Amino acid sequence: MAHESTTVPTFSKHAMVLDSPEPPSVWKEVTGTVKNVLVPRDNKPFSPSCFLTACIKGLFPVLQWGRNYNLKSFRSDFMAGLTLASLGIPQSIGYANLAKLDPQYGLYTSVVPPLIYAVMGSSREIAIGPVAVVSLLLSSMIQKVVDPTVDVDTYHKLVFTVTFLTGIFQASFGLLRLGFLVDLLSHAAIVGFMAGAAIVIGMQQLKGLLGLSHFTNSTDVVSVIKAVSSAVHQPWHSGNFLIGCSFLILILITRFIARKNKKFFWLSAIAPLLSVVLSTLIVFITRSDKHGVKIIQHVHGGLNPSSAKQIQLTQPYVVECTKIALVCGVIALTEAIAVGRSFASVRGYRLDGNKEMMAMGFMNVAGSLSSCYVATGSFSRSAVNFSAGCKTAVSNIVMAATVFLALQLFTRLLYYTPVAILASIILSALPGLIDYKAAMSIWKVDKMDFLICMGTFLGVLFGSVEIGLSIAIIISFAKIVIRAIRPSMEVLGRIEGTEIFCSIRQYPMAIPTPSVFLMRVDCSFLCFMNANFIRERIIRWVTEECDTMKEKTGDKLQSIIIDMSNVMNIDTSGLATLEEIHKELVFLNLQVAIANPSWTVIHKMKIAGLTGPIGGDWIFLTVADAMQACLSFKRDSV
Amino acid sequence: MAHESTTVPTFSKHAMVLDSPEPPSVWKEVTGTVKNVLVPRDNKPFSPSCFLTACIKGLFPVLQWGRNYNLKSFRSDFMAGLTLASLGIPQSIGYANLAKLDPQYGLYTSVVPPLIYAVMGSSREIAIGPVAVVSLLLSSMIQKVVDPTVDVDTYHKLVFTVTFLTGIFQASFGLLRLGFLVDLLSHAAIVGFMAGAAIVIGMQQLKGLLGLSHFTNSTDVVSVIKAVSSAVHQPWHSGNFLIGCSFLILILITRFIARKNKKFFWLSAIAPLLSVVLSTLIVFITRSDKHGVKIIQHVHGGLNPSSAKQIQLTQPYVVECTKIALVCGVIALTEAIAVGRSFASVRGYRLDGNKEMMAMGFMNVAGSLSSCYVATGSFSRSAVNFSAGCKTAVSNIVMAATVFLALQLFTRLLYYTPVAILASIILSALPGLIDYKAAMSIWKVDKMDFLICMGTFLGVLFGSVEIGLSIAIIISFAKIVIRAIRPSMEVLGRIEGTEIFCSIRQYPMAIPTPSVFLMRVDCSFLCFMNANFIRERIIRWVTEECDTMKEKTGDKLQSIIIDMSNVMNIDTSGLATLEEIHKELVFLNLQVAIANPSWTVIHKMKIAGLTGPIGGDWIFLTVADAMQACLSFKRDSV
Repeated sequence: MAHESTTVPTFSKHAMVLDSPEPPSVWKEVTGTVKNVLVPRDNKPFSPSCFLTACIKGLFPVLQWGRNYNLKSFRSDFMAGLTLASLGIPQSIGYANLAKLDPQYGLYTSVVPPLIYAVMGSSREIAIGPVAVVSLLLSSMIQKVVDPTVDVDTYHKLVFTVTFLTGIFQASFGLLRLGFLVDLLSHAAIVGFMAGAAIVIGMQQLKGLLGLSHFTNSTDVVSVIKAVSSAVHQPWHSGNFLIGCSFLILILITRFIARKNKKFFWLSAIAPLLSVVLSTLIVFITRSDKHGVKIIQHVHGGLNPSSAKQIQLTQPYVVECTKIALVCGVIALTEAIAVGRSFASVRGYRLDGNKEMMAMGFMNVAGSLSSCYVATGSFSRSAVNFSAGCKTAVSNIVMAATVFLALQLFTRLLYYTPVAILASIILSALPGLIDYKAAMSIWKVDKMDFLICMGTFLGVLFGSVEIGLSIAIIISFAKIVIRAIRPSMEVLGRIEGTEIFCSIRQYPMAIPTPSVFLMRVDCSFLCFMNANFIRERIIRWVTEECDTMKEKTGDKLQSIIIDMSNVMNIDTSGLATLEEIHKELVFLNLQVAIANPSWTVIHKMKIAGLTGPIGGDWIFLTVADAMQACLSFKRDSV
Repeated sequence: MAHESTTVPTFSKHAMVLDSPEPPSVWKEVTGTVKNVLVPRDNKPFSPSCFLTACIKGLFPVLQWGRNYNLKSFRSDFMAGLTLASLGIPQSIGYANLAKLDPQYGLYTSVVPPLIYAVMGSSREIAIGPVAVVSLLLSSMIQKVVDPTVDVDTYHKLVFTVTFLTGIFQASFGLLRLGFLVDLLSHAAIVGFMAGAAIVIGMQQLKGLLGLSHFTNSTDVVSVIKAVSSAVHQPWHSGNFLIGCSFLILILITRFIARKNKKFFWLSAIAPLLSVVLSTLIVFITRSDKHGVKIIQHVHGGLNPSSAKQIQLTQPYVVECTKIALVCGVIALTEAIAVGRSFASVRGYRLDGNKEMMAMGFMNVAGSLSSCYVATGSFSRSAVNFSAGCKTAVSNIVMAATVFLALQLFTRLLYYTPVAILASIILSALPGLIDYKAAMSIWKVDKMDFLICMGTFLGVLFGSVEIGLSIAIIISFAKIVIRAIRPSMEVLGRIEGTEIFCSIRQYPMAIPTPSVFLMRVDCSFLCFMNANFIRERIIRWVTEECDTMKEKTGDKLQSIIIDMSNVMNIDTSGLATLEEIHKELVFLNLQVAIANPSWTVIHKMKIAGLTGPIGGDWIFLTVADAMQACLSFKRDSV
């Protein structure tokens, strides 16, 4: 050997591999995980009062940032809050419409939840309120149970029950630190889901935009196209379409201007409110409601009424409500945490997913008791909040107060607001949900992820929201399982002049050592599902290598090194297969060496008595050691 | 640095990492796998005639070993075949009883399938015929559709249809090279399943042993105990119990003798047949059938009749039959391939799972056309075959011929055979299925596997066979997914005096380098499910390390090395998280280095443009290089 990178004698390295301390038992691991999950991490000794203070501080971040709050921050937050409200009021009315609720419910939802979030949430930029996707989800799933056009009271009851259960789910996810539930949907799935939902929501707006009276309750593209094409033969009023389209164009133009010049971002923020005011005025002046333009009519104003009595946790609907609440809860959290994290990362602070879940949960429970439906963090309004220079969650309080004032004073003015304008406000918010650039970069980077993205997208579009989500989760898990059961394996070679051995496919300059076949198993869990695959691959490679060597040089293959550094765990099937592999290779007259088995693997091999047949002398800490031993073995045997 | 194991200059190693060739695309991988799976591997150029010859040779291994077959081998096979038949005849009758079929069907099943297997199978030791577990599976699942005591004709039709479909499934698994289906059940699951099935089968034998007329159709322990306890109050005849128990004890004693002294193994092989003969004689002489001892009565002899017309691939039962056939097919294959592999490994040859599947499939299709039910390789009889010194599958032919002769000549002699003796023959075969030693070693080695084993066992015992299997598969997959989503991570240290870095938990002598935090991510797929977990773990560790260092030495942490050698793949969520981790660590004023990213990972990082922000200079081939760079970076910055 030209190089000798080791000064520790080889035998002691063997001993190191075999005599490593016992890894923590499964029991310890499980209890450790549970402890880690349930008890807040803290290096200090435990004391009840400290624990309580820590809990309260954890629950109400306002106690921390509130201390340093000053007038300057308030000025920024006040302006941001007002801007937010001007966008939030029309959007809330529109989303309530999407959720098949009266306009005031959208406004209610912009009052209570933001107030709760302001004291419990840790994000500074999130704008809380109703959002498009959750509104769609809610209405599309609940109306399968009860048709709102037939039985509006039961529909309301179900909405509040679902909101309540959503809150309970979210809070308990946070309490039990099940933050990983938000990770169930991969980035690719979210991109596909959002795009699909945006198109579905857009199609639903055709009802308002065309002023149709009858429309389908289904959300898939096929049903909607059918509904629209059959509606074309009915009498419809171009007034609705005209108003909707012209203001949609107006809003889009302001958005375009704002994007070109960041100074004018307030223009795009205020455009929806402006459109509402202008369109209401136009309708009022021309009295076009008498000529077929649909108007909102009466909006119930005043304080949020209590809805505690409408929550029904009894049969027959509670099972359905629980299912819907679970889906809504996860989707709402996924959206909110994605929004929160992206802004937190821009501002350079971290969001604790579990705390956010608790805040969201409490705010929805409180909302469900005060006539609000499911609220969460909105993509578009959070961006406006951020651009408007918000400093803390106080902007949410300002917004809530403004909406509250509007509820008290201005609901009567909404009488003549055309329904079509709500459609155009929702439509104008949708392009932000279709992130085709992200989809393109997913296609470039990872074809499997693109499959997930497209599967989710098409599932939402042609099936339903639930089908889309199921497709996302199934493909994602199938991907993990397939990777686990069909691991790759690499033949390794030496980088000349070094003790570095790496894949000859990845590094073509790496040269395999003649007479020693060196391979690496690239799976982290050698288990029943992949053990046979690995065994067959190894035996095939080795026999092929034997044949090639005989043909080419007449030499014989002498030894095999299996680099196990990537195998993190092994089960009993894996151990049995390892023994078989060893036996079969010995049958082929080959010396087998194992390099760098990981902690759990060497431990289990010892317990299963596998180190005996393989020979403790042939288990090495590094590939280089194994190679050296194999080469000197060859010299000895020659 | 004291040691310099590299002679290649560092910059060229960077280039190596970044300029590695493109890994094969997903498309290429998929087509490659499909090609590998469908086309037999061969290095020779493709020609139709060669292909055909190879196919025929592959399908009929008899063409290869038949050439060298000689008289000496035949002598061994003949003796083994006779021994096999002496055990096989009583077992076949017993298992037919377990499958709720008349005795002759068990004997038929020991004629046709072994003949087919002898020419198509590649195992030399497997003894083909009806087995206990599959018989139980068949009767317990089919009688949920049709009760054999009510409509025996339909029951027969369903049995043959299921057998036919089982064969079709098995053959197509082999044809499509779906050998991995057999791996669906891990070793631990099989141990639990077999033990559970054995106890269930044993409980079912209480009917015959006690001579009960009414019994439950359910297989779970609770129902059987209820049935037995209610039967105790009915009149029952101790004669059945006496005959059954005494011969059971006889068989067990011969087995005990055989185990003590290998010479007498034929004694245990012949004991069941002997018991049948003796007990029949006793009943015939004492005419105890008139005093309540149940006898088999008429057994239909002669050639296997055709059952082709009884196969019904039409509604209403075809869907049920397909389900049952799928379960039976997989279980039968699992058992046969486990048996075949274990003996092949003793004799030092390899079994091709796909070819075995084809052979089993054809033999069951042929069986279904000739009044046989599902046959597979039997644990107990294969062991007898092996002990009796069989050389090739000719022993199966000899056995089939013997059973055939028995069917022609001796079925009339079975008239007075007591039913209880069948129960005791089945009972005597069961202890071999309960492998408590394996269960204990599973407990010692892998607690999760033990959970699978016990789950399957209890599922079969207290639920049903299907519930047990579902539990096995669900826990097994959950195990894989949990390992994938909660990967372990290790802090690495240097083994003094070397360039070797390894886990400080596994190797306590490894010493962390001050001012450089070196960690390894131990998951093979950095994806949406584990990316956030890994990010939080890294950030937590790094902040904790920063705090500890400040407290202890007042030094500052300078750089982080993330060893990615174990990360084999990454998805878009993983890439996004990697970028975030880098950003957050840079916020903490740390230099981040990445060591040894695998092929796919570095490729995707390049496409996603991540090598830019991280800096190509800070991606290294080895941990040692990264460490060197970090240390010199520290010197420079100081």
